[in-house]
Amino acid sequence: MKQKLVDYFSKIIPLTDEEAGAILESIVTKTFKKGDILLREGQVSTEVYFVLEGCVRQYYLKEGEEVTNGFFTEEQWVISINSLSQKVPADHYWVCSEDTTVVIGNEQKENDLYCRFPRFETISRKVMEKVFGEQQKLNVSYFTATPEERYLRLMNTRPDLFQRIPQYQIASYIGVKPESLSRIRRRIR
Amino acid sequence: MKQKLVDYFSKIIPLTDEEAGAILESIVTKTFKKGDILLREGQVSTEVYFVLEGCVRQYYLKEGEEVTNGFFTEEQWVISINSLSQKVPADHYWVCSEDTTVVIGNEQKENDLYCRFPRFETISRKVMEKVFGEQQKLNVSYFTATPEERYLRLMNTRPDLFQRIPQYQIASYIGVKPESLSRIRRRIR
Repeated sequence: MKQKLVDYFSKIIPLTDEEAGAILESIVTKTFKKGDILLREGQVSTEVYFVLEGCVRQYYLKEGEEVTNGFFTEEQWVISINSLSQKVPADHYWVCSEDTTVVIGNEQKENDLYCRFPRFETISRKVMEKVFGEQQKLNVSYFTATPEERYLRLMNTRPDLFQRIPQYQIASYIGVKPESLSRIRRRIR
Repeated sequence: MKQKLVDYFSKIIPLTDEEAGAILESIVTKTFKKGDILLREGQVSTEVYFVLEGCVRQYYLKEGEEVTNGFFTEEQWVISINSLSQKVPADHYWVCSEDTTVVIGNEQKENDLYCRFPRFETISRKVMEKVFGEQQKLNVSYFTATPEERYLRLMNTRPDLFQRIPQYQIASYIGVKPESLSRIRRRIR
């Protein structure tokens, strides 16, 4: 399964056999159970995850209620960039929505790879560009789209989520109450 | 004024005199007039800007109406990461809200610097982390905050915007109609 990460990097920059080998050798994977929490509000994030299989949900607590703003599935990165790079407490939670296998990265491992293979710095920058780009897109959809448009976009881009995630969490992600999601679904049908 | 960019980088990673000199020598600045458009929807973005003085507003057209989702002022980066890195048409506009002086960067210049000073790759990655972090924060504020909370946060973090930007654009940025912004302001007073 580790090969998935090598394949992912290779799509960004073709890797030499030596580089691919170094990645395979250095990466650590771990499988979490559904419901396991990877990060809590108030903790400083020290790890990044690359999802090999499963789903990690990101949520905030707002007056005791969970507000979901991310589902990270296969080949997506789970990164809390502020907490990680500025070493400040995270303002959100990460919880496994399913049994989930991830590659675990941390600063030490990253820096070791940069030293041995300076090209990884380029790869890392390009990964960041990709993740940042996805974030910008998501952001735009919150500024410019109605909940109904967000629902349709999610159906088109990530249809699997509707099989994997409870309705009320999808509703939260789209920014509406569960009743409104039911109304949207009826209207669209 | 170019020195501002060197100072900005130095805060991220201390620069050698040679590196600082190379930056000063290579960067190009340009001053735009209020109302000048730096990027239009449909164009592929080929440049990034670092604001030395002034303000660039980012907006989308939604059914003919402008939806503002960014104000970039002194020491902020103006980057359309998807358009730039994937060479796809931008979905938004950048317009100068004031006479604005920027440093102009592009891929060619960046790669030249990486070749001469590999450490710039690290700086670039860290800049990306910073910009990405700001984006994540903004995103969270749209998922979890009410318009009133967003207004208060903006007052605390970027009070200068209220002197620089017309009310209706602030309203759009906060995600409400101008009338609602007036109500929010009255309630807070």
